[in-house]
Amino acid sequence: MRRMALWAMYDGTQFSGYQVQPGKRTVQSEIERALATLHKGTEIRIHSSGRTDTGVHARGQVIHFDTTLQIPVERWPKAINSCLADDVRIIEAAVVPDDFHSRYDAIQKEYHYRVLIEQKPDVWKRNTTYHFPFPLNYPKMEEAASLLMGTHDFSSFCASNTSVKDKVRTLSRVSVELVGDELVFKLVGNGFLYNMVRIIVGTLLEVGVEKREPSSMSYILQKKDRSLAGKTAPGNGLFLRKVYYNNDIFSENY
Amino acid sequence: MRRMALWAMYDGTQFSGYQVQPGKRTVQSEIERALATLHKGTEIRIHSSGRTDTGVHARGQVIHFDTTLQIPVERWPKAINSCLADDVRIIEAAVVPDDFHSRYDAIQKEYHYRVLIEQKPDVWKRNTTYHFPFPLNYPKMEEAASLLMGTHDFSSFCASNTSVKDKVRTLSRVSVELVGDELVFKLVGNGFLYNMVRIIVGTLLEVGVEKREPSSMSYILQKKDRSLAGKTAPGNGLFLRKVYYNNDIFSENY
Repeated sequence: MRRMALWAMYDGTQFSGYQVQPGKRTVQSEIERALATLHKGTEIRIHSSGRTDTGVHARGQVIHFDTTLQIPVERWPKAINSCLADDVRIIEAAVVPDDFHSRYDAIQKEYHYRVLIEQKPDVWKRNTTYHFPFPLNYPKMEEAASLLMGTHDFSSFCASNTSVKDKVRTLSRVSVELVGDELVFKLVGNGFLYNMVRIIVGTLLEVGVEKREPSSMSYILQKKDRSLAGKTAPGNGLFLRKVYYNNDIFSENY
Repeated sequence: MRRMALWAMYDGTQFSGYQVQPGKRTVQSEIERALATLHKGTEIRIHSSGRTDTGVHARGQVIHFDTTLQIPVERWPKAINSCLADDVRIIEAAVVPDDFHSRYDAIQKEYHYRVLIEQKPDVWKRNTTYHFPFPLNYPKMEEAASLLMGTHDFSSFCASNTSVKDKVRTLSRVSVELVGDELVFKLVGNGFLYNMVRIIVGTLLEVGVEKREPSSMSYILQKKDRSLAGKTAPGNGLFLRKVYYNNDIFSENY
């Protein structure tokens, strides 16, 4: 028996999120089905660094599982991919220590959120960007973003139906970049609450259209009240970009 | 009665091509259905600059039709789009002379073909690029491309089941550009035969992997034999980029 880690990439458009749900096509169930095929019918349970919601994408999701199969490590991606539809791909596989855990060992996560700011719609970006064609005040958005950096109780930026008790998280990066016809938000933190990235982006866009002031961020954080923050931005602009561990798992930088 | 021209953009992935086919979802039938809704059930026949095949995309397709409706010209795109699925969008509408014809009046067309040359697959580009992760000799591809420019009989670069008699066409541009992790072929010509862009791209890629020499282009053209050219590249990398007319139809440069 050995423990394997997989670097997975998926287009979330056609998935009902990551986690297994009866009767729904999910990333976890598709990968588990592929692994069961390779293991001649034996069920293989996989564990990821965290779930993603319906329509949310992942460029660098990390998954682990245990196997008795003796396939050479470099052959795993091709073997699994041959059993998967082409909207989910295994990019690399690695043998990891028996006590490695994709979720508990993650020290940081990086999310990107893509906003199409062009006036015209773009049919090829409809599933990967949030179309928001309104004039934006960049300096104000940047000022607001900087106020979210550091360690805070993010209760106001968390979906209100969450059961998690401790809502203190540390964000080491909250940036806004103009890339062609898109605005890309990049967030790095030691953990993210449910819908946290999408609520932060929704709130920063409201600062951008001058519906609220940058300075209101401190007040919103302090009040721990979801209703004070902005709307939850749609899932289709969100990408789980990378999961960081103490040791590099994969050979390639991604 | 007045004649309208539409600038249409579509993601070809979910369409069985442009042209109406019984029981199939096509671009023409979707737009005609939308127009019939706006015209309270009256059938409206549309005419495009030319068909596109299954999976082929268009950023600048031009369509015309006649209408008695008195909707202000700037309201047409929104009106039509509200009756369309989000993989096809009308970007702009214009009133054109009564004798304008989107196909017969076109003087040039521009096609782009996107090839993903990265080793790794990219799930978000699976429907818009041809994944071809092999080392390529760029100078040789450019040399071969230049030999296709100008006026030639393109019989060797035309699907063999075509009924068109005159296969002489003039290409004013055949270029290969590296754009990030993609190779983009750009072709401009006064007309294109069936599968012509895809066969040219397939043949140039064979030059790129040194399966054939650039100089063989002249021989292939001269022989007027489809079997001498390369494979037809898949439809999903192909974009109808723009249709040129003697007078600009739309206000915006696209």
